[in-house]
Parts: sequence; C-alpha cells; structure tokens
Amino acid sequence: MKRNALSNVHSDKLFEQVYDYLLERITRGEWRAHEKLPSIRTLAIELNVHRLTVFKAYQMLKQNRKVYVKEKSGYYVLPNNMLPLDSQHDPIVSAYVQESSLSEIHQVKAVYQFSIALLDPHLLPNQFFSEYVKRVFDLYPKVLGTYSTIQGDRELREALCHYFTKRYHFYLSADELLITSGSQEAIDLIARVLIKPRDAVLLERPTYSPAIDVFRRQGANIIPIEIHPHGYDLDRVEMLMQQYKPRLFYLNPTFHNPTGFVVPAEQRKRLVEIAHKYKCVLVEDDPCPDIYFEEKPPLPLFSYDTAGYVIYIRSFSKYIAPGLSIAMIACHPSFMSYLIRAKSLSDSGTPLLNQKIFLHYFFCERMQKHLAKLRIALAIRRDIMEQELSVTDWKWSSPTGGFNLWIRLPESTPMESLLSKSIEQSITFVPGSIFDPQREFKSWIRMSYSFLNEQQLREGLKRLVHLSRTLHPEGNPSGD
Amino acid sequence: MKRNALSNVHSDKLFEQVYDYLLERITRGEWRAHEKLPSIRTLAIELNVHRLTVFKAYQMLKQNRKVYVKEKSGYYVLPNNMLPLDSQHDPIVSAYVQESSLSEIHQVKAVYQFSIALLDPHLLPNQFFSEYVKRVFDLYPKVLGTYSTIQGDRELREALCHYFTKRYHFYLSADELLITSGSQEAIDLIARVLIKPRDAVLLERPTYSPAIDVFRRQGANIIPIEIHPHGYDLDRVEMLMQQYKPRLFYLNPTFHNPTGFVVPAEQRKRLVEIAHKYKCVLVEDDPCPDIYFEEKPPLPLFSYDTAGYVIYIRSFSKYIAPGLSIAMIACHPSFMSYLIRAKSLSDSGTPLLNQKIFLHYFFCERMQKHLAKLRIALAIRRDIMEQELSVTDWKWSSPTGGFNLWIRLPESTPMESLLSKSIEQSITFVPGSIFDPQREFKSWIRMSYSFLNEQQLREGLKRLVHLSRTLHPEGNPSGD
Repeated sequence: MKRNALSNVHSDKLFEQVYDYLLERITRGEWRAHEKLPSIRTLAIELNVHRLTVFKAYQMLKQNRKVYVKEKSGYYVLPNNMLPLDSQHDPIVSAYVQESSLSEIHQVKAVYQFSIALLDPHLLPNQFFSEYVKRVFDLYPKVLGTYSTIQGDRELREALCHYFTKRYHFYLSADELLITSGSQEAIDLIARVLIKPRDAVLLERPTYSPAIDVFRRQGANIIPIEIHPHGYDLDRVEMLMQQYKPRLFYLNPTFHNPTGFVVPAEQRKRLVEIAHKYKCVLVEDDPCPDIYFEEKPPLPLFSYDTAGYVIYIRSFSKYIAPGLSIAMIACHPSFMSYLIRAKSLSDSGTPLLNQKIFLHYFFCERMQKHLAKLRIALAIRRDIMEQELSVTDWKWSSPTGGFNLWIRLPESTPMESLLSKSIEQSITFVPGSIFDPQREFKSWIRMSYSFLNEQQLREGLKRLVHLSRTLHPEGNPSGD
Repeated sequence: MKRNALSNVHSDKLFEQVYDYLLERITRGEWRAHEKLPSIRTLAIELNVHRLTVFKAYQMLKQNRKVYVKEKSGYYVLPNNMLPLDSQHDPIVSAYVQESSLSEIHQVKAVYQFSIALLDPHLLPNQFFSEYVKRVFDLYPKVLGTYSTIQGDRELREALCHYFTKRYHFYLSADELLITSGSQEAIDLIARVLIKPRDAVLLERPTYSPAIDVFRRQGANIIPIEIHPHGYDLDRVEMLMQQYKPRLFYLNPTFHNPTGFVVPAEQRKRLVEIAHKYKCVLVEDDPCPDIYFEEKPPLPLFSYDTAGYVIYIRSFSKYIAPGLSIAMIACHPSFMSYLIRAKSLSDSGTPLLNQKIFLHYFFCERMQKHLAKLRIALAIRRDIMEQELSVTDWKWSSPTGGFNLWIRLPESTPMESLLSKSIEQSITFVPGSIFDPQREFKSWIRMSYSFLNEQQLREGLKRLVHLSRTLHPEGNPSGD
C-alpha cells in the first residue's frame, strides 16, 4: 500500500476524484446493495480531504442514484449499480446496468393501454400505405440491394430541406441533416458525442424518461428544471446555466411529453439567447408538431438559432409510421461530422428502404390531407378523456396538441397499488415518477389518448376511476 | 493547491490513476497536438510514484493512440484526442473523436470499387424481391403502424431458431435471440454492455476495422492476436488471456474479413475451452457463412459453447439485402437482458417492416436456391481476380469463401501514392493498415470481388497492376 499524491489538482478536480473513487468502488461491488458506506468524517480523514468535498461527492452520487440516504444514519448503496462480477447466475459480466422502466410498462399486455403514446394503427391510412410501398419498389427496384450512406439518402434530405423552407421559412442544406433510425437513436448519438462523465446536463422535470436513462448512462450530472403550462422560469434557467455550466439542455418545448405544455414563442427566442451566452447546447426534441388541435405551435427553437447552439431532433415515428423508425437531426455543420462518425460506429446507416418509403409517403398530398383528419380524430379522443375525467377530483391542464394527459391525482392515492390493481384489470398508465430525474411526482400519471379507440377510452377510464375510488374512498382521504 | 492522498490504493489502481490523470489532461486540451509531454522522471517526482508506473501509463496511452513517441526525445500528444473546447470553428464541443477511415474510403465514388465488400446488386433477385415485399404488405397490412418489441419480432426469432436447429443442430429458444439493425449495431451494443475503460480486449490482426474503432471508443486496451491461413497460435492466445485477462475476444473465424481465412474446427473447440477457463467472452462475428466455394465451413464456435461464453453475431446484410440491415445476436439468457436494455436506449427496436420482409424473403425456397447460384457467381469472380493477378509478384492465399482477397504487394510499393493515384484513375481498394489495431500491414491491401462485374474486375485490375508498375518499375525495386 503506497500513498500517492497527484499534485497540481485544484479543488474541483479533487471533488471529482473523490466521486470517481467512490463510484468505482461501488461499481466494483466493494460494498453490497444496501450496505452502509463510510461516514463523511471517516472518508475525509482517510483521503485527507475536506469534509465538504466528501459531502459534495456523496450528494452527486445520490443525485445520480448510486446511493441513498437514511435519515440520521448515513449513505447506503442503491442496488443495481454493481457489476455482477461474482454472480453465479451470470457467466458474463456487465459494465453498465440501466433502468428503463418505461419500456417495461410498455411490455405489459392490456386491453386499455393508456400507457402507450403512439397512434392507434387504425388511424393510419394502411391500405393506401401498402399501395404506396409497392410503387416505391417499382421506382427503386434495387433498393434492398443498396446501403444508404451513413448521413442518409440525399433525395430524402433534400426533400426535408424543401419542407422546412416551405413550412418554417428556415433554410437548410442537405449537409446539415442526418437521418436516424428513430428519435431514440438521435438522442443517443448526441449524448455520446457531447457528454462525458460528470458533465452537467439540464433536463426538464418531468421529461421523456429514456432521455434520463441515456444521459445518466453517459455519467452526466443531471440538473432538473421545472416545466410549467407556460414554459420555464427563464431566470432560473439562466442561473443554473451560470452555476453549473451545463454542456446541454435537452428539451421538448412543443406538446411536451408527458405534460402537453407548449413553450411560448417569446420564451423560445430568449432561451436561445441565454444558451448562446452560456455556451449551452439546446437539444430540441420535436416528435409531433403536426398534432395540434387549435393553432399551429410556435416555430421550433432551431429557427431562432443563428450561432449553431440548437440541435434539432425531428421524428416522424409517432404519427406517420412507427414501423419505419425515421427521424432526423438538423445541426450546425461543425457538429455534423462528429455525429456522422458516431453513427458509423452505431449502425452504419439507416436502412435505405425505410428512407425511400418515408420520402414518398410523407410528402405526398394524400398524407398531408390525412394529417388534417388525424388532428380532428385525436382532438375528439382528448375530449372524451376530459369528459370522463370531469366527474373526478383529478387535475390536469387541457393539452392543445400531442398524445397525452398529465394528471394529478389526490395526494392520498396509493399509487403503487393503483398501478398493480389496474394491470390486474388490464389497464395500464405511466406513473409520473418515471418522467422525473428525481423520481418524485408520485401523485401524477400520464395517460395517452392516442392508442385506444373512443369506446376503449370511455370504458377503460370508467374502470380506472372506479378502481381509484375503491382504493381511496371519497370523503375519507387516507393518511389525514 | 492541496495535496490529496487516496489511500488503500494498490499499485494497479495507482497505474490506472496516473493513466486517467494524463488522459484527462490530454482530453481537456492542457497540452496541444504535437506538444511534448512531461518526462517520465518529472512526472514520477511530481506524482510521487515509481517511474515504472508512469512508464506503464505512457505505454498504454501510446497503444490507445493518445500519444506518440519520438525516438530519443519523449512522448507527444497525438492530434484528434482533444476536446475542441477553444476552437473558434466549433461552437459545439465534442467529447469523443473517432477514426473511421473505412467509411471514408467507401465514400469515394469510383468506377472500379474494389474497396466495397458488398454484393453487386445485380446478383440479387430484385424483381422477385419486389414481388415478395408486396405480398408481405398483404400479409401484415398494419406493419408500418406497429413498433417491434425491442428484442425483435417473435415470429422472426422463432423462424431463426428453427433454421439454426435444421442447419447447425443447435437448439435455441426465441428468448436467446436479439434482432439488431445490422452487425455494426450488434458489435456496438455488446461493447457498450461489456467494456469499460481500460478493459483488455483481444482483436484479430488484421480485423474488421469498425470493430477496432468501437472498442477503442469504449476505452479498451486492445491486445492484437495474429490470424493465419490456418487459424491462431492457440498457445499464444492462452498466454495472452492469462496475462491480460481480457474481457472479450472479438473474432471472425469464418471467411475472415479481410483475409478470407477459416479457423479449423479443432481450433474452434479448443478456443471455446480456453475462453471458458479464463472467463473471456468470445464475440463471434459471422457475416457470410453461406458464401462458401468448396465445402461448407465448420460449425460456428457458438455451437461448441456450453457455458455461455460465446456471443454469436449473425448478419445477413452483406449477401441478402443491404437495404434491410438485419442481423441478430444469440447469447446466454443472463446476458440478453443487458443487451435488451442497451438496445432500448439505442434505437427502441429494429423496424418491424424490415424484420417481416427479411423473414419471408430469407426463408423462402427461392432464396435458398438463389444462394447456390450466388456461390457460383462469386467463385467465378474470385477466379477472374486470381487470373489477372497471376502475372504479378503479388501474394495472397486463395479464399474458399467470402468476398475478399488479402494481397501482399512488394515491400517497396509506395502504398500511399498507389492509393491516391488509383483514386485519380477511379479505382479504390482498402490499404491493409486500416485493418490493423497497430496500423501496420503497410504492404497489404484488401480487394473485394463481390461488388464489380466480371468485365469491371478485369479492366480495373489491369489498370491497377499497370499503375503499380509505373510507380515501382520491375527489376528496380525502389529503396534498395
């Protein structure tokens, strides 16, 4: 046992070293799940550092869900953070263990799947779609024998540029676009290129939960920022940017998932300015700008960006064709080359077939007409949900677009047993805590109106409301 | 500036700390590209560690292409390892910069693309394919409206299990298979789950170059092992496994890319035993077992594995349908759950359409008959290459399957100017150094016979041979 002394290390580095040192020991399994960690005092003496440095490291470990706190006792190892190195069941060791509770809930088979924020396949023009695909094969007889370039089919990228010019009046070249296999790949590539361990990342609270998992896997230090019906507290955003110097802010300002909120235009403009000032990249995820029920949503943040600080993810899976998995990233050319390299290692290009089908399907007149009908169909489904819920004391802001209601149940609702009993009755919803980097929002749930038909919506909601009443009799809120 | 002392750190940890400390300073750009790093002696004093510890850290930095050595001078920063934090051209900072020279060469447009190890699209039954796809849409009218599960379409996984039982007599359940979007995704997922910085990884030398990039990106310490016409030196493999305790060995034992070599059956069996003994996972990449010209290749290593130490990647893109990008991973169930989690963050499932088309296309009788014709067509193309090359003093082992010739040119050939002059004449090939983790094999090139037709092969080779002679006149080898 030899003592080493890395000199020239200032105190930020020191805190990071203590953090890494603890993280490595936890990951290596030196302490077991739920085992108590050394006290701050003990560690400070052992490592010859200030107690505040150890405290700071423990705080970040807690934030990153590596440890948990027991009041008046100390820090304990949170399970699922260890390498299963010694596990007898596991001949192969794993370095990274992630959570992805959303995909687990999606695997539950149920009649009333309020958990799925996807379009009911019956709302897609399937017959027309099949006819169309056959034409695509006539147009490109060798499409299955050909790889796409890694950046994506040029014909598709040019069509997308044309579409953005026409729709948003912003001008892009095909070189500023990358086609990805869905928005999940887009988020993953951006995170892999931009984020390294301990980088600060701003996330909305609540937010799209797989994004939490991706940034956490990259080792990011996650800083939450609340989203409200009318956007963010921008002074707080600025303060957080100043304080933490986040590498990026991942956000979903248009028909936000799960809340349905829309960040207003004037906030968008100011946010882009603030981001530029603090050199924080804005990663704007935009999966459903076409699904508006009243007026068109404001322009994307990307359209306000002149300095290259906005990376724009536009996906089409949710309401065009989940089976195709087509999304795109638009960004400053300086960043594009890094993304292309990352993609070349990740899947060597989105399949050409999917790109060609999407190209001819999305931009045809019939699809654009179909979108108008789709908006009406979804608005009706939202209305049905709201009607059914109007008899309860549940609270929500009526969404003006998108697929979801973000609902607050009475605080006394026993959420875990509501979910498990719902699943028994073939009803699923997503508990709010899944969307929260801090795993709070315990009284909230997300219910999607996009996947079920009108009759299913009514019937499923009646059952759920009834169930919640049996668990939490009216006029007698438990816990009071 | 405060001194810290992380006690309880044994000497392996110490070396890793010094490595991390230097790597972080390099990545953060504290030294510029080509700037000289502190001497071993200086660092040893500064950090209060043994000189050998610093030496070992520098050696690994060199191996991982972070620094280079100038004889009798010292260690220097290799470019492209720094964050472009201060770059004026680059408003967005990037954490990871990778190399992927192979994809760059593939972007060169040329008439004689010997660089592409893909099937000539004319050799695919395109007309039949289009007809078939139309039938798939009739069978699954809602295929574009439906997401696949993350693990992949169950019908396809069951069909694959049936195929493996019939062909290889090994028994799999659908739960042991994961469908991926091509083999690149498969390698990437496995690397992300298994490899963390400083893990040792065995790679063949030469090997498939994007695999080098993927493992290097994960921060692996790459240990090369030579592959010969008759396989590996297994005693050396065992010695390396004993010495370095590699987490995995990535290998391509059947019609190896780029050499075409086939590892014999008796070596396969012993290799699986050795891997089990040293708890080293064998990642077996098998992109073209159907493309044999003489007898069928030996069974995959996976079929010898009883302890769950082989992960089997089988891809179909190269000779079935590049435009579909379908591959699969077969592995022990204990490892599968980690892969599924990783895939859920990486692309939320391979598109269902591609899986359904592949399912009906690959397993139909007509496709299997087509494969017999394909083998003959490719054997003829190989023969043409070998005829044309027989007039030169270039050396190669005649491949019994696959897509490539791995050719040794005279040592005096000025390879860089041969490549650049070839590209000027619309001829591409892949320089051998790209396939080598150590960037040697400077006299070798890979030439594929799969993509060009017979006339192009003859004409392109005549031109290339002529060109090499003008650069290196016969009977007058330069440099002697």
